[in-house]
Formats: sequence, C-alpha cells, structure tokens
Amino acid sequence: MSEVREKAAKAKEAARRMNRVTTEQKNEALRLMADRLVAESSAILEANAIDLVNGRQNGTSESLLDRLALNDKRIGAIAEGLRQIIDLPDPTGRLLDETQRPNGLLIRKYSVPLGTIGIVYEARPNVTVDAAGLCLKSGNAVVLRGGSAALESNKAIVRIMHEALAQSSLPADCIQLIESSDRASVDEMLKLNGLIDVIIPRGGRSLIQNVIQNSTVPVIETGEGICHTYLDEEADPVQAEAIVINAKVQRPSVCNSLETLLVHESYAEKFLPALANKLKELGVELRGCDRSRALVAGMEAATEEDWRTEYNDLILSVKVVGGLDEALDHIAKYGTLHSECIVTANAERAERFLLEVDAAAVYHNASTRFTDGFEFGYGAEIGISTQKLHARGPMGLPALTSTKFVVHGSGQIRR
Amino acid sequence: MSEVREKAAKAKEAARRMNRVTTEQKNEALRLMADRLVAESSAILEANAIDLVNGRQNGTSESLLDRLALNDKRIGAIAEGLRQIIDLPDPTGRLLDETQRPNGLLIRKYSVPLGTIGIVYEARPNVTVDAAGLCLKSGNAVVLRGGSAALESNKAIVRIMHEALAQSSLPADCIQLIESSDRASVDEMLKLNGLIDVIIPRGGRSLIQNVIQNSTVPVIETGEGICHTYLDEEADPVQAEAIVINAKVQRPSVCNSLETLLVHESYAEKFLPALANKLKELGVELRGCDRSRALVAGMEAATEEDWRTEYNDLILSVKVVGGLDEALDHIAKYGTLHSECIVTANAERAERFLLEVDAAAVYHNASTRFTDGFEFGYGAEIGISTQKLHARGPMGLPALTSTKFVVHGSGQIRR
Repeated sequence: MSEVREKAAKAKEAARRMNRVTTEQKNEALRLMADRLVAESSAILEANAIDLVNGRQNGTSESLLDRLALNDKRIGAIAEGLRQIIDLPDPTGRLLDETQRPNGLLIRKYSVPLGTIGIVYEARPNVTVDAAGLCLKSGNAVVLRGGSAALESNKAIVRIMHEALAQSSLPADCIQLIESSDRASVDEMLKLNGLIDVIIPRGGRSLIQNVIQNSTVPVIETGEGICHTYLDEEADPVQAEAIVINAKVQRPSVCNSLETLLVHESYAEKFLPALANKLKELGVELRGCDRSRALVAGMEAATEEDWRTEYNDLILSVKVVGGLDEALDHIAKYGTLHSECIVTANAERAERFLLEVDAAAVYHNASTRFTDGFEFGYGAEIGISTQKLHARGPMGLPALTSTKFVVHGSGQIRR
Repeated sequence: MSEVREKAAKAKEAARRMNRVTTEQKNEALRLMADRLVAESSAILEANAIDLVNGRQNGTSESLLDRLALNDKRIGAIAEGLRQIIDLPDPTGRLLDETQRPNGLLIRKYSVPLGTIGIVYEARPNVTVDAAGLCLKSGNAVVLRGGSAALESNKAIVRIMHEALAQSSLPADCIQLIESSDRASVDEMLKLNGLIDVIIPRGGRSLIQNVIQNSTVPVIETGEGICHTYLDEEADPVQAEAIVINAKVQRPSVCNSLETLLVHESYAEKFLPALANKLKELGVELRGCDRSRALVAGMEAATEEDWRTEYNDLILSVKVVGGLDEALDHIAKYGTLHSECIVTANAERAERFLLEVDAAAVYHNASTRFTDGFEFGYGAEIGISTQKLHARGPMGLPALTSTKFVVHGSGQIRR
C-alpha cells in the first residue's frame, strides 16, 4: 500500500473515533499541542534550518524563503493561533433543525464533522499547525501535504503534535503528514474518494488549478482574487481615493486586494488624473485602456491578459467605462467571484451592483480588503472560498462541518 | 463554438438576468409552463412516440421504455409537479446573517441562486420538466443533458417551455437543452468551469461515477444507496420484521431501500429463520454469510461483491455479526453514506449507532425508505445527496442556492 493510501486509511479510522470525543477533549489536545510546540521549538528550528539551507541551494526565491523561515517569535505566534482556536465555539453537534412528522417520526438535523480533510499547500509550516488545529476542533481527521521545501520543518512539527496527541484523548492518527515529495503523491490524494471526504487547496493559482483539474474528491476552491472596484459618476472623490489606495496598496500580495479599477467616464475626466498620480507616488504601476491613457500621461497599455491577471503586486489595471452596465459586464467576464466594490452616493445603482454582481462579497463604499474571517468577526479561517457550493467567502470552523439527519421512530414503515 | 459551450454561455447570460426577477415573476413562468405543457400534450406525445419506436428498434429494455413512455396522465402529473413548485417558498433573497462591526461596516449574508446548474440524467422526460422547474424557482439557469433515447420528447418539452417563458418576464435562455447525443457533449459540459457553476447527476451508478470521475465543475453526488439495517440483540421482533420487509420490498428499485441486513448473533438464532421465510414468501432472494446460511436453509452464499452491490431489486444480502462494533465496521466499509438503521430497544446502543455511523440519514426503529424530500416535509427534491459538502440527504430548493456577503460601508478602509 502506498504511503498516501495507508495514511489516508489511518486518518479515516481516526475520524470515526473523533465522532465520540467531547469539546473539552478537543480543547485539551489543542492546548497540549500549543504547549509542546513552544517547549520543543529548538527541534523545530533545527529542522527548519535544514529546509532553509536546502532551499538556498535550490535557488528558492527570498520571498518563499521568508514564508518558510521560522524563529521563536513565529513559533510563539503559531502556538498562539492554536490557543485562539480553543476559544472558538465547537461547530459540531449543533441541532440545526427539528421536525416531528404526522406519522410520529422525529427528524433532527445536526452539524457533524466532514470526516477526513485533505489539505494541499505550499512550503509554509504555519499552515501545518493552523490547518491541523482547525480540522481537529471541528472533529475532523486531516491529511496534510505541504510543499516539499518545508518537509523537515513539517516532519518535526507533526512529530511534536503526535506526541501531544498521545497525551490527549484524541487518536494521534487524526493528523497525517504525507512525506513523499513526489508530485504523484498529490495526484494520488486527489483520487482517494471514500477515504478523503474533501480536499482544500491553499496556495497560488497553479496549485489550486492543479487540484481543481485533477481531483475526483470534492474540492473547496479558495483564494484566487481578481477584485474590481467601480467608481460611479456619483462617487465621493475623497472616499473613492481612500478606498482605492487601501485596496491596492495596503497589502497587495493578498487575494482581496484590488487588481482592476473601473471608472465611470465622467468621474474619470474629473478625478482620474489626480488619483493616478497619488497611486504612482505610492509606487503603483498603472496599465490602462485607451480612454484612461488619454487622461493620464505615462500609463502602459493594458492587454487582454491584464484583465485576467491577479497581480498580487503593486500593479493596477484601469478601465474607463460608459456606465454601470459596462462595469457589470466587465466584472462578469473577468471577475473570480471573490470581492467586488462600488463607490457611489447613488443608492439605486449601488443596489443594482450589490444584487447583480456574482461574488462571495460585494461592497458599497468600503475596501475589498475586509473579506477576511477576522474582519467579518468569524475568527480564524481555513481560507476564502471562491466557489458557490458549501461555503462562500471567509470559511471558519462551520465550513468544516457537514450535516446528518437523525431519525427516531417507533416502528414506522412507509405506505 | 460547440453547441454545449454556446448554450452554456447563453445560460450564464440568462442567469445574470435571473438575479433581478421576483418570486411572482418566477411563479408566473412556472404556471405558464404547466399550462402550456398540458395544452400541447399531443405534440409531446407525438415526439415521445418517435422515441419509443426508436427505443424498441434499438432493443431498449421494457423497464427503460416504461420510464421513457408518456401519456396524458403522466403529462398531467408532470404539470402538477410544476404547480407544486409554485407553492414552495422562494429559497433566494433570505437574510441568513447580519452583523455590524465595530468599524461600522454592516455585513449581511443572503441566500442567492447558484447561477447555472448542469443536470446530467437518463432518458426520463419527467426529469426535464422537474429539474427545470426547481432550478427556475431557485433563480438559476439550467443546462439539461438527458439520455439520448428521450431526445425527441425532450426537444418538444423544451420548445414548449421556451414558448411559455417567452410570455413571461424570465429570459427564455434560462433553460437550455443539449441536443447532441454524443457522449463527448457530456464530457465537455463537465469541464465548463466559469460557465456552469455546479453539475448534478441524476441516474444510476455508472452515470454518476462518470460525472464524478470527469467533472472539473463542482458536483453534487446523488443517489447511490447501499443501505443497511442492523437488528440488535434487543430488537423487537415484530418491529424488526415490519421494518426489514418494508425497507426491502415496498419499492426495491429506489436508493433508500434495504440492501444488506446485519443481524446480531443472538437475535439471529431466535428470529432469523422466520424472518427469512417471510422474505422468501415475498419473493426476496437471500444471499448470506456462513453463519446465516447455517441458520437458514437454501440461502446462496454472499460474496465480497454482494456487500458492495446496490441490487435495486428483490435481493438481500444477510450477515450475522457478533455485536454493534462489527456492524459499525461493516457499514463503515461498505456503506455509501446514504441511510442506515438500527432496530433495538437499547437506548445506549441506539445512541452509539446514531452518533458513529457516517451517513446522510441514520434511523432508530424506522424504515430507511423515509429518506425522501416529501417524507421529511421539505417538498419536491432535486435528488438525495450522498456527499458531505453543501447539502446532505434529500435536497430541496435551498440546496440550489449559494450565499453572498453584502457589505455596506461609509468609506471604511483596513488598517
């Protein structure tokens, strides 16, 4: 039996036992894990140092090395993240619906764990702990397949989490780490229907697309965000400027940042040149349609490819449109169903935008940067869903549950 | 552009317009469709006659021809099904959650249509109307790909529904029928991410498995049911007999019928011979494990394949087990997460069964045949989900919706 199949089968067995553990037992396990990660941080740092040396030898970019690198402060933050999960309400065992039928059947609908969750992610050791913590708190077993550049770090972290689980009431097998750095191990995971209940990819576009294209196990699509902001003819210029700059500049590398600015023609004539200057001063490279280039000097031409690109960088594509319909058409064509914003003082057009734009989150007069579990008040998130099934937008613990109908009878049969 | 891509693109355009239609407009369209299907029933019957002649020439089985055949009564029932959908509450536009953040952001979560739903099904013209009606009522556009043996019937039905929609406020393009009988047209549908939001297969195991194996569009898995009933040592024999007979015999062709009977050894010694005789008298073929064959004369041996088979027929596999744990292990190994039952007077073991069995519906002392939208009190269903994401068990109109966060601000930016 392959490593992947064997570990997924162990996880499935553990998931069955997880149905019997209490909230207190899960919280105790999380506490033990957090404590032990801190207590054994030197072992984690030693393993991490090996990954970093290997990464440098393999020519890994500095930004990837930065995401891979751990230190005492980062390990402390990772452990603190686990402790925060303890404080979140248990999403399982909730009575969601109850009905008594005329024949006397009592039908209750409960939230239950999903079962076994596969997480496919990049070389980020913090995700190893974070994903394991969220899956455990929601009563699931987890099969982790992180980027191979973090393998030594992940092995050390999972060994320590297993030691902590051995002291707890939870089955240690509820956390499984795939150690094969072979790409085939990912492909195998994606086909394990019956052993793995859902796959959640966390990472960049190519990682996510590989999972979507190849998985026969149900997938929760996350993360890709080509977010638009539309400045209506009645946009307040002070608000508009603050929102656009915040959405583009505050943290351009994340999925809820602004990628394409749509501007009503009359607003553009009055205010686009000044806004463009502000953005340029902040280091933003602008790429525009013909009409915006006629208004703003020194703007590169945007190509079809630009409208389809999530830059995750200080680059912004700009398009002048004739009105709301053109803006809606552009978003329908190029949007990734993540976060879209209209800035306007006109309530009617705002309403149309909010109703007709298809996205996880639609905004009226606020930065798209708010699409986030903490900002929405839901606490830690496992990712931001950009698909429409199951969960949409920031996914907290309830997104890691399914439901079950529990039916009590007294001998009822169907006529 | 291929037929499939062109029609899916039209459906997506129509889906955008569906966001603006009211409940009354949708109900009016359903009423017009129901009326016109009855008024034009002779045209439907003519087309259906062609399908039936072709089917007979191609050697189609009588049971498939029976599902394909229409008559005035069946068309009346199909139209009545549409009228029942009118009476169901609109599942979209419901406020699901509302929160005001400390920074003043007002975050509302609404139920919204899924968008465009692809339905892949067999040669059953009633599904054409039923699926279209449910998708429309939930604000979705639908791309229908029915079995090619029903093509002429489906073309007539969709033409009539389009004529009805032309008199309504809904875009006629919200119903699309794929006419290509090529298997490749199904495969193409399953890859149309961005145009089709979800695929729902309705049919037998091979149809469903083909969709699961090949779709990159998210799928809602439906229907396969290897359902077990476990007779505990404290099962009431009168209840047990009634439940087993009902679950196996009342309608063996459907997914919630009983396929494998698990019997505690002490119950089996006392009551299995009599129960087996009753089942045989009702025409049920029994296939048993060694222990059950030692108790019941003339029982075929069950093979590994039997435990994995959804007979959908008057056949029952029987296994004697040493206790609850063995029953739970068997269900975990062979169950399809559909419906599972324990018959017992022992509350503790019932509770363990209900908690630990992983299935859409778990029963204590009632027939598994109740897993059904109408029987659960939810009205018309689009299918019974046997997966864990999005919807589980009987799926009514709410399963055809997604959610959207609508955020109202006054210039908020993220710090």
